[in-house]
Amino acid sequence: MSSGRRKSDSVDPKDVPKAVVSRLSLYLRELHHLIAAGHATTSSGRLGQQLGFSDAQVRRDLAYFGHFGQPGVGYRCDELIGAIRGILGTDREWRVAMVGVGNLGQALLGYRGFASQGFKIVAAFDVDQSKTNRQLGGVPVFALDDLAQVVQDQRIELGLVAVPASTAQLAADRLVAAGVAGILNFAPVTLNLPDHVSHVGVDLATELEQLCFSVANRSSGT
Amino acid sequence: MSSGRRKSDSVDPKDVPKAVVSRLSLYLRELHHLIAAGHATTSSGRLGQQLGFSDAQVRRDLAYFGHFGQPGVGYRCDELIGAIRGILGTDREWRVAMVGVGNLGQALLGYRGFASQGFKIVAAFDVDQSKTNRQLGGVPVFALDDLAQVVQDQRIELGLVAVPASTAQLAADRLVAAGVAGILNFAPVTLNLPDHVSHVGVDLATELEQLCFSVANRSSGT
Repeated sequence: MSSGRRKSDSVDPKDVPKAVVSRLSLYLRELHHLIAAGHATTSSGRLGQQLGFSDAQVRRDLAYFGHFGQPGVGYRCDELIGAIRGILGTDREWRVAMVGVGNLGQALLGYRGFASQGFKIVAAFDVDQSKTNRQLGGVPVFALDDLAQVVQDQRIELGLVAVPASTAQLAADRLVAAGVAGILNFAPVTLNLPDHVSHVGVDLATELEQLCFSVANRSSGT
Repeated sequence: MSSGRRKSDSVDPKDVPKAVVSRLSLYLRELHHLIAAGHATTSSGRLGQQLGFSDAQVRRDLAYFGHFGQPGVGYRCDELIGAIRGILGTDREWRVAMVGVGNLGQALLGYRGFASQGFKIVAAFDVDQSKTNRQLGGVPVFALDDLAQVVQDQRIELGLVAVPASTAQLAADRLVAAGVAGILNFAPVTLNLPDHVSHVGVDLATELEQLCFSVANRSSGT
């Protein structure tokens, strides 16, 4: 466990529960809302309130990464945003490749939330030649066979996999071979990746199943 | 904690960590892959292997909900699929409404993964009149003002919120007023909902931040 006074550069991420890191993203989002609402400073209580977390929870989570804010004064929103972005690694631009520009891929290309958080999709790839050699949402779409070259030329670090489950491992293998450091997988399959490549899976049906469990148990107990 | 022998209908969902429920979805997905690969039975070790979980983890997770499989024999894939779908509440069809048919909403309407898991999107809503009174991906799109009536007529239980952050709370309020039991929110904002309504948030930028934390700490320690 962290002493609560370590600097972020001394934290071993293995020491930090995933739930804590995911709450950092929520704090970051809430801090942006607070600034938009005209609040220059905030407290752990106010920060947790809208998110449904206690002030103790907020302080405990932040304590993994150092010592923030002053007792009585609270946190300066802009300072805490900078600190959390530094912890998450989103205090710089990340260059991203999208593999698969079908229905979901095209939506992700048009999704504004990525760019606003510093994720720049600089290239997309598809096996369907009717989709390549053009731009979608301002992003050039290349043939899948060009992936390795483009990833190297464009210094791409992250890959989004938005292909069907049947071809997701192949797409991921190509991204890994091209040297990306992390993969966000939207295909409903668990990828087999080498240890040096980070990955996060987003399975939309799975999210709905989690919702169902809550609804079903709440309403009927089964 | 569960004794490991309780029946699922006696489990208080508050006793079950969210991480366990999310792993149930992964087990379910993996069981479908195993059946597709010709395996009628499996073991906790094989089930966990592709997912990166130990056999003890798999057994511990399932023990929250009852007693499954036989020592030495393992699990019958079809039986365990049925049991997990029963636990998650996805052993029946759920009728779903989509609010917002912009870029992301249209992609979600075309996403095959929902229907295959029993989530039937039967109506969509938008404030943009150029998008209403037509079908998108086979789903009729209504004006937002028709939401309460359509949700009642169509016996809709779940809502997907795919509108911008600025209007997400309004969309959620209308769904709640119409009587939905659960909301899956894709807008990058935390919704304020009554306790009797379940909700799950999917923030795509947040998922990428989680990936970045892993990559950034893995690669540079900062």
